[in-house]
Amino acid sequence: MSRPVVLISLESPHAFWRLSTEHERSLRTAFPDVEFRTATAEDLQGQLRYSEVFFGWRFDPTWLSGAPHLRWIASPAAGTDHLPVAEAHAAGVALTRSYGFHGRPMAEHAMGLVLGFSRGLFLSQRFQRNRSWWKDDLAEEFFDLAGATMTIVGCGSIGGHLARTARALAMDVIGVRRTPPSVPGDGITWFHASAVAQAVAVADVVVNLLPATRSTHRFFDQGLFSACKRGAVFLNLGRASTVDQQALLTALDSRHLRGAALDVTDPRPLSARDPLRLHPRVVLTPKSATFCHTYMDEAVAFFADNLHRYLTDRPLNGLADVSPALSPLAGG
Amino acid sequence: MSRPVVLISLESPHAFWRLSTEHERSLRTAFPDVEFRTATAEDLQGQLRYSEVFFGWRFDPTWLSGAPHLRWIASPAAGTDHLPVAEAHAAGVALTRSYGFHGRPMAEHAMGLVLGFSRGLFLSQRFQRNRSWWKDDLAEEFFDLAGATMTIVGCGSIGGHLARTARALAMDVIGVRRTPPSVPGDGITWFHASAVAQAVAVADVVVNLLPATRSTHRFFDQGLFSACKRGAVFLNLGRASTVDQQALLTALDSRHLRGAALDVTDPRPLSARDPLRLHPRVVLTPKSATFCHTYMDEAVAFFADNLHRYLTDRPLNGLADVSPALSPLAGG
Repeated sequence: MSRPVVLISLESPHAFWRLSTEHERSLRTAFPDVEFRTATAEDLQGQLRYSEVFFGWRFDPTWLSGAPHLRWIASPAAGTDHLPVAEAHAAGVALTRSYGFHGRPMAEHAMGLVLGFSRGLFLSQRFQRNRSWWKDDLAEEFFDLAGATMTIVGCGSIGGHLARTARALAMDVIGVRRTPPSVPGDGITWFHASAVAQAVAVADVVVNLLPATRSTHRFFDQGLFSACKRGAVFLNLGRASTVDQQALLTALDSRHLRGAALDVTDPRPLSARDPLRLHPRVVLTPKSATFCHTYMDEAVAFFADNLHRYLTDRPLNGLADVSPALSPLAGG
Repeated sequence: MSRPVVLISLESPHAFWRLSTEHERSLRTAFPDVEFRTATAEDLQGQLRYSEVFFGWRFDPTWLSGAPHLRWIASPAAGTDHLPVAEAHAAGVALTRSYGFHGRPMAEHAMGLVLGFSRGLFLSQRFQRNRSWWKDDLAEEFFDLAGATMTIVGCGSIGGHLARTARALAMDVIGVRRTPPSVPGDGITWFHASAVAQAVAVADVVVNLLPATRSTHRFFDQGLFSACKRGAVFLNLGRASTVDQQALLTALDSRHLRGAALDVTDPRPLSARDPLRLHPRVVLTPKSATFCHTYMDEAVAFFADNLHRYLTDRPLNGLADVSPALSPLAGG
């Protein structure tokens, strides 16, 4: 009986998103009965012909027809909107995302952005070059995080990690999702998605972690931004498609929102003259919220656990939801 | 018998550093046997003639001679280097600082600055206006806070609060002081001041909270910056006099330090052409680390507790150390 073939395609310009030789060795040691192969961009499709499992960042839907033995596509990413979820499902191929380790870097990223506004650090960085002194400006701008309210829209496992971090800084946290957990935890006050307007109305900081689905398209529109408390800070660490950027710009220009930080935009990057890019109260990060030097350690550990499950016919973790429109506010 | 007179002089350009009418009312209610008077800049010296207690931001040493009944100068500030500690002591007048409530805003400020560097947020704010895309730059720059080490030099009560916040973000924390506590707490690893070079050598983030005393003058000099780990971030939220700014600039220019954030500088503000002010990897804040909207609530509560002590002949909290050279690394 031939050994199952796992094809690995984890190339990236960034070392922390690549498979290291140590990762590869640890997989081979843990699974002596599995044949691991690594693909390059050139031979990937040729190798897929003989592979049962694919572990990689991207998978083109056209590749499915040339992969007769493929049973499982495993992604180290948290989201699945860039993957052929429906096509894989139709072909009887499982598709899994990864979870449980994006929360830490994303919580650091989100708290850094929140504190950058609340402590006037972004303002200081601008003013130190073109003002003599800006203590009075900062005294008008800053706010205390302790006792302030953060509302997390699309509060899944990533949101839970962010909530714990925000609680450690003495913030009150509201979580919004379609199916709030029946057992409260992490000190989160839960709001059902249908009450999102009330949830953002009391927030000093609104964090958007929504995934991209049909029903989250432009979820943050003019109406929802208007529902936000005047002076609130808005963060988008989710998906660009969930925000109406023109409505966001209007809310910033009218000073209804104090500021915004966007890790995702449409297009990415924004053009050099895009008003959001030049806006003094907008901070853009280059989709770096999940940057983490231990990312691949965690992703390989998640995959190894799932591979054990696969080989022993147990259910896989992180199976993509084939009808994501049904759970628009899961986040995660 | 006449009621003791407490003279209050708490003017500030910033509302959160002024005494509100509610604060005044709460003091009058709590102490019906005390006569509270508020001074303006014009009548302050005249009023001092009849006052037993002074509660205010500043006190000029020349005022002592015109205050024959004065027994106690109470400051809402954490530091005493701007107050006539020796002169008051010589005149038999107690002088107290305040403590226990600066830690929270300073911990928020410090963590915001640290995350601004670790998540590449300051870099992003600069690059979003003059680069097309900077994801690769950020991938080279960022570091994970979880598992990184913060060394707090001058780790008193403020440092303890910062340590707890850093621990909540999964950092390892080293505290440096002249007299490390005999009972460990807050997950801090303690180093004696004599081992400060070893303590900064293992730190990814060095936070200076030293007070200004004779023995902390230019404590951070070329030698101590050289002892820091290559790539470390340096924060000064203490006093400007404790840092050799030229040595700091050299350490930044050689890229030995990754970046620096200074809440205090000499002079303040720095001249518009000062190289630290224009340095791309330096962030300056306008002595705003203690900005806090509940500052005066806390300061009045601290003063009220001390006034109870004063009226019942119990020892005052926060008595200024008349020989600060003996405890250079207390912080607080």
